[in-house]
Amino acid sequence: MARLNWGMIGGGEGSQIGPAHRISAGLDGHFHLAAGALDVDPARGKAYAEKLGIAPDRAYGNWREMLEGESGRDDRIDLVTVATPNSTHYEITKAFLENGFNVLCEKPMTMTVEEAEDIVETVRNSGKICAVNYGYSGYAMVRHMRAMVARGDLGKVRLVKAEFAHGFHADAADADNPRIRWRYDPAQIGPSAQFADCGIHALHLANFVSGQESQSLSADFISAIDSRTLEDDAMVNVRLDGGAVVRLWTSAVAVGRMHGLGVQVFGEKGGLRWEQEHPNQLYWTPVGGRTEILERGAPDLSPEADRASRVTIGHAEGMPLAFANIYADLAEVISAAKEGRTPDPVAMSYPTAEDGLRSMAAIRSAVDSASGNGAWTDARPPSMRG
Amino acid sequence: MARLNWGMIGGGEGSQIGPAHRISAGLDGHFHLAAGALDVDPARGKAYAEKLGIAPDRAYGNWREMLEGESGRDDRIDLVTVATPNSTHYEITKAFLENGFNVLCEKPMTMTVEEAEDIVETVRNSGKICAVNYGYSGYAMVRHMRAMVARGDLGKVRLVKAEFAHGFHADAADADNPRIRWRYDPAQIGPSAQFADCGIHALHLANFVSGQESQSLSADFISAIDSRTLEDDAMVNVRLDGGAVVRLWTSAVAVGRMHGLGVQVFGEKGGLRWEQEHPNQLYWTPVGGRTEILERGAPDLSPEADRASRVTIGHAEGMPLAFANIYADLAEVISAAKEGRTPDPVAMSYPTAEDGLRSMAAIRSAVDSASGNGAWTDARPPSMRG
Amino acid sequence: MARLNWGMIGGGEGSQIGPAHRISAGLDGHFHLAAGALDVDPARGKAYAEKLGIAPDRAYGNWREMLEGESGRDDRIDLVTVATPNSTHYEITKAFLENGFNVLCEKPMTMTVEEAEDIVETVRNSGKICAVNYGYSGYAMVRHMRAMVARGDLGKVRLVKAEFAHGFHADAADADNPRIRWRYDPAQIGPSAQFADCGIHALHLANFVSGQESQSLSADFISAIDSRTLEDDAMVNVRLDGGAVVRLWTSAVAVGRMHGLGVQVFGEKGGLRWEQEHPNQLYWTPVGGRTEILERGAPDLSPEADRASRVTIGHAEGMPLAFANIYADLAEVISAAKEGRTPDPVAMSYPTAEDGLRSMAAIRSAVDSASGNGAWTDARPPSMRG
Amino acid sequence: MARLNWGMIGGGEGSQIGPAHRISAGLDGHFHLAAGALDVDPARGKAYAEKLGIAPDRAYGNWREMLEGESGRDDRIDLVTVATPNSTHYEITKAFLENGFNVLCEKPMTMTVEEAEDIVETVRNSGKICAVNYGYSGYAMVRHMRAMVARGDLGKVRLVKAEFAHGFHADAADADNPRIRWRYDPAQIGPSAQFADCGIHALHLANFVSGQESQSLSADFISAIDSRTLEDDAMVNVRLDGGAVVRLWTSAVAVGRMHGLGVQVFGEKGGLRWEQEHPNQLYWTPVGGRTEILERGAPDLSPEADRASRVTIGHAEGMPLAFANIYADLAEVISAAKEGRTPDPVAMSYPTAEDGLRSMAAIRSAVDSASGNGAWTDARPPSMRG
Repeated sequence: MARLNWGMIGGGEGSQIGPAHRISAGLDGHFHLAAGALDVDPARGKAYAEKLGIAPDRAYGNWREMLEGESGRDDRIDLVTVATPNSTHYEITKAFLENGFNVLCEKPMTMTVEEAEDIVETVRNSGKICAVNYGYSGYAMVRHMRAMVARGDLGKVRLVKAEFAHGFHADAADADNPRIRWRYDPAQIGPSAQFADCGIHALHLANFVSGQESQSLSADFISAIDSRTLEDDAMVNVRLDGGAVVRLWTSAVAVGRMHGLGVQVFGEKGGLRWEQEHPNQLYWTPVGGRTEILERGAPDLSPEADRASRVTIGHAEGMPLAFANIYADLAEVISAAKEGRTPDPVAMSYPTAEDGLRSMAAIRSAVDSASGNGAWTDARPPSMRG
Repeated sequence: MARLNWGMIGGGEGSQIGPAHRISAGLDGHFHLAAGALDVDPARGKAYAEKLGIAPDRAYGNWREMLEGESGRDDRIDLVTVATPNSTHYEITKAFLENGFNVLCEKPMTMTVEEAEDIVETVRNSGKICAVNYGYSGYAMVRHMRAMVARGDLGKVRLVKAEFAHGFHADAADADNPRIRWRYDPAQIGPSAQFADCGIHALHLANFVSGQESQSLSADFISAIDSRTLEDDAMVNVRLDGGAVVRLWTSAVAVGRMHGLGVQVFGEKGGLRWEQEHPNQLYWTPVGGRTEILERGAPDLSPEADRASRVTIGHAEGMPLAFANIYADLAEVISAAKEGRTPDPVAMSYPTAEDGLRSMAAIRSAVDSASGNGAWTDARPPSMRG
Repeated sequence: MARLNWGMIGGGEGSQIGPAHRISAGLDGHFHLAAGALDVDPARGKAYAEKLGIAPDRAYGNWREMLEGESGRDDRIDLVTVATPNSTHYEITKAFLENGFNVLCEKPMTMTVEEAEDIVETVRNSGKICAVNYGYSGYAMVRHMRAMVARGDLGKVRLVKAEFAHGFHADAADADNPRIRWRYDPAQIGPSAQFADCGIHALHLANFVSGQESQSLSADFISAIDSRTLEDDAMVNVRLDGGAVVRLWTSAVAVGRMHGLGVQVFGEKGGLRWEQEHPNQLYWTPVGGRTEILERGAPDLSPEADRASRVTIGHAEGMPLAFANIYADLAEVISAAKEGRTPDPVAMSYPTAEDGLRSMAAIRSAVDSASGNGAWTDARPPSMRG
Repeated sequence: MARLNWGMIGGGEGSQIGPAHRISAGLDGHFHLAAGALDVDPARGKAYAEKLGIAPDRAYGNWREMLEGESGRDDRIDLVTVATPNSTHYEITKAFLENGFNVLCEKPMTMTVEEAEDIVETVRNSGKICAVNYGYSGYAMVRHMRAMVARGDLGKVRLVKAEFAHGFHADAADADNPRIRWRYDPAQIGPSAQFADCGIHALHLANFVSGQESQSLSADFISAIDSRTLEDDAMVNVRLDGGAVVRLWTSAVAVGRMHGLGVQVFGEKGGLRWEQEHPNQLYWTPVGGRTEILERGAPDLSPEADRASRVTIGHAEGMPLAFANIYADLAEVISAAKEGRTPDPVAMSYPTAEDGLRSMAAIRSAVDSASGNGAWTDARPPSMRG
């Protein structure tokens, strides 16, 4: 596979997400950071780009310059990552797609369901790839869960228990700290805080591993800290289109929990349990049998897990390698398109614009339900309400 | 403390609950099994009673004989445990209370809220003790959680996460096995299965540790196995009277989980986590600090934990010793009454008829909510609706 | 099974071991505390005995009075537990055996190998039972390990890893506290401290589960706290008579570990892992397979585990119930002898005087090895050196 | 920091260690793979090099060509990684050092103590860096352990418990499989198998975290599988030069354990515990206090931990990121030398040729001790015997 040219918008000096993307994109050598518009301050962005080894003529002052500059090149970037503030994702993603670029967009893909519908439509017309960074789906053992469900090991899935609960916003004295406050400001992030920010990852995982999409939901939102208008804790019950039920809890005031992302899947024939903080083990219990510990790197896993695994059994792999699996999938799919061949089907599990759209619909649905005393609401995007 | 006379109704040969009560009641030597009506079959019950060392004249054929026989004795039993089928609890408990006996009733205390109100009234009139066996509240570290909350370590409690989820009713092929089927038969157990059987323990723990009672709730019930008319999985959101919220999940189809009872409490100043399968550790995280592991038997716990602890640190204590703590509390309170002294205040945390009543109200409320699409319903007993 | 009469020497008010024995002996109702010489102070001992419900004529001032008193009774005690200071175990145990009593002796059975040989000889001549309280062998899952090895699940055992390491004697400032100092005083406890006190439990478990006895060993003793003349940390390598090797670590200065008793067994066909602080789970890995979690109370365990289990799966059982299993075994064996029947073979795994003798030989051997720079020494009692 | 040129010898297509080095070296963007002699088959090596993006004129047929080619360039590589078969490490490392290259050598650095002494001498004369890949010392929490010891949190270190025990060579039926057999062939790997291969990592960690070097040791080696002449399980007791003792167990027949690398450190004031399979948590217990869980990424760790950490708390980091920390240190030190500045002192903890030498001496010492019935032998290299 030839090395691909990669560009980045946002993720400038001091950002958290920038280095994570660069580590993950570069990790397997598939992508070369060739272009960037890294900062709202053009000078700072260019300086940082050069520091990262980007050629001066591809260190752009803003995304519009970058779109124009790259569009005119023969060696134009094969993929652009959009890691800018949430409210700009839609505009940038759409513009790049329309100009024939593949995009990996940070979540949320858009601010509204309507914009998300528009992105899906744009993708369809452009023939390009639009991935959304639900990066936890890149973990080897998450992919193995999905593979086990898909091949029937669990029989029909009945129930998914999903959690994403941390305690880092529990300090009332710190709630007005700007570092935290913006996360609960409707003007900046829309009508949902904790569910849209963290819960949605858990919901994506629930959909991803069960192979079932959300149909309707009932949500209970609370603000444990009074000064917040948006929720910092939520419980959401979801009915999936394959008949399973999701029990999803997300919290930012669960003191003592760190990342707190985990998923359990219960089916007719057995149950699975996985936790993101110890991602290399998966617990599997067949009905009537004993719990078995499946280790990442073991010889008896699925092709999906094998593809997403780099080091031998007993060595921990962590989050940057999970994110790198999303990039590795994109590299395969983009390369296959360039080389005129069929991509490895095992690489086809990265999250797409459809996932981004479904998330926006689920968030709107949860907000509506929560403000309606938990009334059940349709969780599907309008265009998918067959 | 003089040894007290104890009697048992139900818990005959082959029952599970009988030996658990006998181990727990006898463990500290406070209670001596002096009388019993152990079986619906009088002959079998008497034979078993004698095997257990009960004198022939106190091995009764049924509870009415026992009530009559014991009422006439100077050395009448100080406490009777009612461990008969659920539908008989009310009648027996009421009769013994009215005749001046102290009662420990297995849960559920009654089949209806109205009966439960009547028991509470009966207790009030009789001046006797009626305890209900929410035995998990006897664990040393559960009592320490309650003590920490009560003394203000957590500040105001915001959120309680409670679970009681196992997977032993997940096998559809086994669902019609009589051993399991009766648990989902409305005629035998009333309008709720898994929530009333297991979830209610988790709710009692949530109330017990937070020191707050249930005010309103919203419930989502499902039957993962189609042939069941009652729920085998439930999610319940509860608002407590002190402002905290409970997120309670209970399931019988969570394959891979054994007992699966646990509680987490999150307050303004810190969070606590405890799991019944590893009951000797409690995890405490102050806001902004590190998680600490509190060990049962450590020298720096509360009087409540110390009283409920028998062996030294690092040795596991388990369920029979937790149940024994309920009996130890009752022994103290009954003895104090006999001796005309004030009981040790640390012994006053056993579950009472009021708890039994609150549970019945919560079950009715959950059934109503679940059948009303999750509408919020009042969870309080009518007599406690201020 | 008729209730048996039980007596206790030592274990007076305020002792730790007394309540543990009383809880364990009484737990299943097999033993009734009928006689006792509970304290070195006769008056205190008698007063406490009456408090515990012992009849005044069987509340003795010392063990000699008790021996005489009980010898003359028709309802003499069926078993006496010796829980006095170590240096008196030999004399008391021997006297009771010679007068036809069954004995359960706290460890160490004696202070020297020669005394231990004498006890074994005395047992042989008396036809009575002498058990030694290596109580950890009473855990259900420890017994299951032994059963799995015995029935060949592991193939030939190659290696046993055993640990008993805590950190409660690590505070140099506290080393002269009388509560701790006596444990390192050769005059009171003999030539070994931590190995003889704790390590020997781990060695007994290694022998118990592997079904192999110690043949030779090499020991490294250190005193982490300078003021101690005896070891507070030891590493011992042992060769067993079936070809397996034991790696045994014991420590009293391993800060952060509580009880720290655990055993791992590795054989040709698989490996097992068990830890006393979470005693209800056993981890089993067949060669080439996945690790499985075996839960106490599961339906697919051995008769040995089933016999040693009282409550249902998912409920913790702890140390008092393990000790109770030793008493339950003794009840069965003593009752069978009284009733002239063959005892249940599954009850035959309690530790015996031979185990007590082997322990004394292993301690002497370890002391010799450690003082000889780790030279390999014969670990067998002289009478067992085939 | 300008990107550095990096070269690799060995690590060709299909090797396990090659990708691990490339991921780790490339992860932070410090090193660019500029040259390579990747395979014993020159054509295969060149083809693979080009696939990896190495320019054709720097894709060498063997290490001698590479040494010659790179020596003549202005943009010569700043660092070469030696990942060839063990027996060639010495010759290649020495040659590159003598020609002014910095080297990162896979372990073992050499086959004998004498060769290792020679490398140390060569490093001294060359003024270049020679690092040895004891990569586990790159974990953030391992570095934090070292920092806590160095700043006195534990007081004087008394005891280190170190383990590296897996079960992947336990299958006797598979012992002659070439994939495994070479690891126990003295002709290929020298006089020690499991201790030299795995145990030495645990010993390096013990030295690394305690800040104390090995002085003398006593070893017990066994071959659990009869057909092996070299050990597959070893117990080693070590006396360190600061007075601490190491208890080190290593095994390849511990079925059920995966990687099984862990270290516990016990000092006057507290104890630490860390396990490589869950590397993001460190357990700390002050004497007399509670165990605390330290999380990688927490705000209250040491500069050493902070430097070695890339993603936020609650996200797992794994082995490739630990190895990358070794590369990041080398990048800093090499860059500082090129730029004529003092390197960040926090970057100075990578393993050096002295560590490689100490390891060779410890292996020889262990072999001598084990073949001498565990006699204590000097563990220091001759040149370091004060």
